[in-house]
Amino acid sequence: MPESMTLESLQALIDGSPFLRFLGLTVTSIDPGASTVVLEATLRPELERRGASAQWHGGPLAALIDSAGDYAVALNLGAAVPTINFRVDYLRPALTATLTATARVRRSGRTVAIVDIDVADAEGRLCAIGRACYSSQPG
Amino acid sequence: MPESMTLESLQALIDGSPFLRFLGLTVTSIDPGASTVVLEATLRPELERRGASAQWHGGPLAALIDSAGDYAVALNLGAAVPTINFRVDYLRPALTATLTATARVRRSGRTVAIVDIDVADAEGRLCAIGRACYSSQPG
Amino acid sequence: MPESMTLESLQALIDGSPFLRFLGLTVTSIDPGASTVVLEATLRPELERRGASAQWHGGPLAALIDSAGDYAVALNLGAAVPTINFRVDYLRPALTATLTATARVRRSGRTVAIVDIDVADAEGRLCAIGRACYSSQPG
Amino acid sequence: MPESMTLESLQALIDGSPFLRFLGLTVTSIDPGASTVVLEATLRPELERRGASAQWHGGPLAALIDSAGDYAVALNLGAAVPTINFRVDYLRPALTATLTATARVRRSGRTVAIVDIDVADAEGRLCAIGRACYSSQPG
Repeated sequence: MPESMTLESLQALIDGSPFLRFLGLTVTSIDPGASTVVLEATLRPELERRGASAQWHGGPLAALIDSAGDYAVALNLGAAVPTINFRVDYLRPALTATLTATARVRRSGRTVAIVDIDVADAEGRLCAIGRACYSSQPG
Repeated sequence: MPESMTLESLQALIDGSPFLRFLGLTVTSIDPGASTVVLEATLRPELERRGASAQWHGGPLAALIDSAGDYAVALNLGAAVPTINFRVDYLRPALTATLTATARVRRSGRTVAIVDIDVADAEGRLCAIGRACYSSQPG
Repeated sequence: MPESMTLESLQALIDGSPFLRFLGLTVTSIDPGASTVVLEATLRPELERRGASAQWHGGPLAALIDSAGDYAVALNLGAAVPTINFRVDYLRPALTATLTATARVRRSGRTVAIVDIDVADAEGRLCAIGRACYSSQPG
Repeated sequence: MPESMTLESLQALIDGSPFLRFLGLTVTSIDPGASTVVLEATLRPELERRGASAQWHGGPLAALIDSAGDYAVALNLGAAVPTINFRVDYLRPALTATLTATARVRRSGRTVAIVDIDVADAEGRLCAIGRACYSSQPG
């Protein structure tokens, strides 16, 4: 069984992806025992829904959800895994410059892992929720 | 009942979103009768999964799916609509510089509209498919 | 704003549906403040995956998820609501005669309500999880 | 590579499940080359939404979708497969005594298979659509 990743090694994995670096993803906390990862993303002009709206476009939120779920699986597997599918529900416009994604593995089996991801704004209001299914085999 | 949008007015709507402009979205064809829209996206370094991999990250694919579905609804409503939720299934790595998303409205009701979106690479191989639910009220 | 339903009125609503009566659904607890409903279902031979397997077929589990979510919304709306869509993830075979579904509303807006539903077996093992979207208008 | 199933062997597989027999599922056509299966279900009083409503409850529709997708995968694998997850979107009330589910495999990989399922009433109106992900390993 692989060792759990550290916050630093998870951050290095994220920084290896041009797109995730562009999203400005930072790992803010990990809990290998609870298979939970918390990531933070910061708005930049290219990620806005409309010009000068200070509202996040839904696309980067979906990407944040997918990534947070992936790294929650990676935490105990030691490597990123292919996403099989995921669902996003948008609950409220995301209007703060920083967003927090909390991902928790609900079940990690031999074939697939299922993860729930909550995205909240800087005031703790839930903006979007995701449920994602990943292959259990790094690839 | 609102008039259908033209290819030009749909493109203008897309260009009003910094994120979609960043994705380089181009409307390549519309069919108001079939409630179908075809969009093209072009890879740029910030959208890659890994550096110099020439592979699209799954996040921009999800964003492309959500947007193509939204504009298929907009085509006959005359305005973009809020996404309620969507599902993405990843079928194959997306490895060509251009991708095509074909969105078709399956049902447009008073409350919500349901759209299917297929994303294919430049050789016509299906890379990801989406199913999305939008509010029928522009907002 | 409508009054919250009681456990008895929710049970009466369920008993008005031949299919839910057939599933043997019992409301075991409600929490209107937390918008949470717990339902119990009991296996009968017609609901088995294979003959004499004592394993639930996935179909009734999906129906249990959809119903539990619906009644969590009904709890504070006062009436059952149309399901717009839902997702089920199967985590483990369901092998005990009784199953418990716990449904919790994540967001109740003007147009739609989003609910999470966990299905556990009699030993508390998670067998399936659902995420469902309902119209906020009874109908 | 296993041989494709025949209409008769697929029907026998379905008849081995008490729940599917209860749903009255009949295989009406198969197309192994296109990985497509068409099933028919017939309403019985226990499957109604409300008493004497002649309207199908959404639960059996979800079960029909899950099963049709499963047998579309089974057609070329030779055996039923575990469902990993699926999504159902309800488009219209299902009000005819017979319903038809058409399932088509969109992608069959080493780990999972993805299937689209359309459910139409006896007049050909689309009532619900499903998208489902199955394990590629019979189990």
